Amino acid sequence: MANIGVIGSKGAMGEALRRVIEASGHDYAGGADKGDDVGELAKVSDALVDFSAPAALQANLDAAKRAGVPIVIGTTGLETKHHAMIDTAAREIAVLQTGNTSLGVTLLAHLVREAAGRLGEDWDIEIVEMHHRRKVDAPSGTALLLGEAAAKARKVSLDDVSESGRDGQTGPRTSGAIGFAALRGGTVAGDHSVIFAGEEERITLSHSAENRTIFARGAIRAAEWLREAEPGRYSMEEVLGI
Amino acid sequence: MANIGVIGSKGAMGEALRRVIEASGHDYAGGADKGDDVGELAKVSDALVDFSAPAALQANLDAAKRAGVPIVIGTTGLETKHHAMIDTAAREIAVLQTGNTSLGVTLLAHLVREAAGRLGEDWDIEIVEMHHRRKVDAPSGTALLLGEAAAKARKVSLDDVSESGRDGQTGPRTSGAIGFAALRGGTVAGDHSVIFAGEEERITLSHSAENRTIFARGAIRAAEWLREAEPGRYSMEEVLGI
Amino acid sequence: MANIGVIGSKGAMGEALRRVIEASGHDYAGGADKGDDVGELAKVSDALVDFSAPAALQANLDAAKRAGVPIVIGTTGLETKHHAMIDTAAREIAVLQTGNTSLGVTLLAHLVREAAGRLGEDWDIEIVEMHHRRKVDAPSGTALLLGEAAAKARKVSLDDVSESGRDGQTGPRTSGAIGFAALRGGTVAGDHSVIFAGEEERITLSHSAENRTIFARGAIRAAEWLREAEPGRYSMEEVLGI
Amino acid sequence: MANIGVIGSKGAMGEALRRVIEASGHDYAGGADKGDDVGELAKVSDALVDFSAPAALQANLDAAKRAGVPIVIGTTGLETKHHAMIDTAAREIAVLQTGNTSLGVTLLAHLVREAAGRLGEDWDIEIVEMHHRRKVDAPSGTALLLGEAAAKARKVSLDDVSESGRDGQTGPRTSGAIGFAALRGGTVAGDHSVIFAGEEERITLSHSAENRTIFARGAIRAAEWLREAEPGRYSMEEVLGI
Repeated sequence: MANIGVIGSKGAMGEALRRVIEASGHDYAGGADKGDDVGELAKVSDALVDFSAPAALQANLDAAKRAGVPIVIGTTGLETKHHAMIDTAAREIAVLQTGNTSLGVTLLAHLVREAAGRLGEDWDIEIVEMHHRRKVDAPSGTALLLGEAAAKARKVSLDDVSESGRDGQTGPRTSGAIGFAALRGGTVAGDHSVIFAGEEERITLSHSAENRTIFARGAIRAAEWLREAEPGRYSMEEVLGI
Repeated sequence: MANIGVIGSKGAMGEALRRVIEASGHDYAGGADKGDDVGELAKVSDALVDFSAPAALQANLDAAKRAGVPIVIGTTGLETKHHAMIDTAAREIAVLQTGNTSLGVTLLAHLVREAAGRLGEDWDIEIVEMHHRRKVDAPSGTALLLGEAAAKARKVSLDDVSESGRDGQTGPRTSGAIGFAALRGGTVAGDHSVIFAGEEERITLSHSAENRTIFARGAIRAAEWLREAEPGRYSMEEVLGI
Repeated sequence: MANIGVIGSKGAMGEALRRVIEASGHDYAGGADKGDDVGELAKVSDALVDFSAPAALQANLDAAKRAGVPIVIGTTGLETKHHAMIDTAAREIAVLQTGNTSLGVTLLAHLVREAAGRLGEDWDIEIVEMHHRRKVDAPSGTALLLGEAAAKARKVSLDDVSESGRDGQTGPRTSGAIGFAALRGGTVAGDHSVIFAGEEERITLSHSAENRTIFARGAIRAAEWLREAEPGRYSMEEVLGI
Repeated sequence: MANIGVIGSKGAMGEALRRVIEASGHDYAGGADKGDDVGELAKVSDALVDFSAPAALQANLDAAKRAGVPIVIGTTGLETKHHAMIDTAAREIAVLQTGNTSLGVTLLAHLVREAAGRLGEDWDIEIVEMHHRRKVDAPSGTALLLGEAAAKARKVSLDDVSESGRDGQTGPRTSGAIGFAALRGGTVAGDHSVIFAGEEERITLSHSAENRTIFARGAIRAAEWLREAEPGRYSMEEVLGI
């Protein structure tokens, strides 16, 4: 049993986190949002879960460090500088950052790595995702996470081979590209498919989330796991033993 | 039995047309490609099938008019001016222009019209298609044809509501938008899905082509049908009685 | 605003109904389950919604008749005799019986009818559904409803052409058959696909429910609509204007 | 370059094999069918490919043994006694038997093993396949091959947990079951999906074949590989280095 604090507590994800914390026998230490003092929340928490915004990341990491509590970062839209902040904080506290906290997506990324590593470059890789109509960025953090898994297996940089948002006179597909497409609509919690398209055959690896609860459940499981961990930077694969 | 001439005979579609013409008991009157005299081909043909390029359209229509033979236009990438050319030619000869000659897609467009007309605007419409790695434009002509069917049912112009190639900070989905996404890879002959995403439920209407033969078969069926038709502009719906 | 009573109130569907009744500004008149006196509930209700069991149907209809209130029947597994009971009750009160109360499935059934009526018998029809691991019968009531829509369009009886649960040495597919397959697993609220498989092309019409709320919402919308209706037997198509 | 003989040469698969043999620079040593002397064919072949029937298996293995040539067995519907025949023959010649010769399905089986081994038994496994209307048995050999991969990873016998052809009052899903469903229609070359359905999330691993050429190509690649192999029994994984 732990006191778990939620940063970014007022969105849909924040509500799901609160419900899962209470349902799993932990205590909800409180929530912090834009304008709130995260330091106060950190002091009364055994672990923090952050689903807020990149702009708040440094302050959140600082609060965790000062209080000496581990932190799970589920915020999307992180850039190189944010990853450097995390690496620095991870020298003093246990930090887990991930584009997706679900068990299913974590396993899917593993399978994508397996497939991309074993199929030749003549198998074209395409990643398509669908999310609810209120999502403001594309492709999703999870789609990028899956693309990174494929790029790593092929020993290329995703930035060099990414092809997103095809429209108009595109010319033929670039050999070795990893393509992304984003669908938006309704209340879809999150569907992702990674397609390997070869000569007259196709392999498709997909994940479908029925609602946000799975992400909250995975984040809380990560927070529990982090409480036992040494300072350092961790991934969901380690939490789930994949 | 008829002599059928093929304009754009050297691509994969041209070869499929030749095979279907011969398999269905007709005679292959010959093929014309860039640099060839279409007028000569028109003279020895009872009907023409054109899967070439927009730039060649006026010359092809002129040749058909001079020879007094009907013509099926399957060329994609047509603009407003091309449609005006077709309307003019259709005063003298029978012309059928379509973004997709298959029975299945023609029916799918009909179903999309039905669904879009009966579901309110709170059902978001997304169209996703996948084609082989050599396709040079996006979205596909068939995806646009399906989008037009949905837009018509909602009494809006597709140009006003089309949202294609999402990438980056897109903001939330525009209410009433019709979204497009294009996947490319392998040897996929053509898959299309129209998704209606509502509050906690989704309807998806899809078509999948195993190979190009179905398009060739539909085009030849259209050519047969046109031979009996008065001058005018026709659609696949009329050929297939949908 | 109406007092709406729920028969079969203790299952997952009963809970969803209660939530939707309260969220939509109606009053929850109460719930009746095995052993309870439905007559008492009927007396304090303006409309009844029944998601219980076929064995309770006659008693439920009798209670509605005595109280003079309309009733929505969402119970699955009804046989010919149950339909006769409903027809009899519908001479005195307004009754709506349906295998699926969602707007999306009601529209899907309409599209299936359109497609089956326009495609020849050389397009094979297959219906596949997936539901959660606790579902006890197969195929689902909704799959049968979709099969009925296809059979009606082809002017055949579903009983004569239904092919369910293929296993072992089946021989080649019977021409004109309508096939059913049932998948079970996890917490899936309900996915249905109707596949029309032709020569080298396929059309697939699908519906996916994220959770049971959509069924509860449709049932309450039906109850509201029935309150204004004359005695008679009605369908979801009429409620939704499809 | 090798002389490759085909047993079961007159079906659709036999024709595809002949085309692939010739296109890949090998020589077609000839075909043998019911009533033909396989021994004569074996004598003029460097390798045999058998897509005939279980009843012919012993004679085919004997012919390969007498001629001292390797043999690829793609025949489906094999029982325990047939596997024993293969094991015996494999003491003298190189034999490869498989339910599916495509690269994609071989990799898919590997991914299914990975996923089934890492996800707990609370993830329900369902396998659904679709094939053309002329297929006479269900589930497909490939579906069973994928089921075997999942069962092996879970350390159970597929026979003990297999649940195929659900229909009627089935009761709730058996915990730990591996379910099978078979769709038939049109000209579908072969689609397979393995679904892992967990608590509010689903992972789906799929393969889709556009036509039979991929199976023929894989079989010929296996025949080439077997020519260099010592006597023994081999699998597609070894040929493809998976």
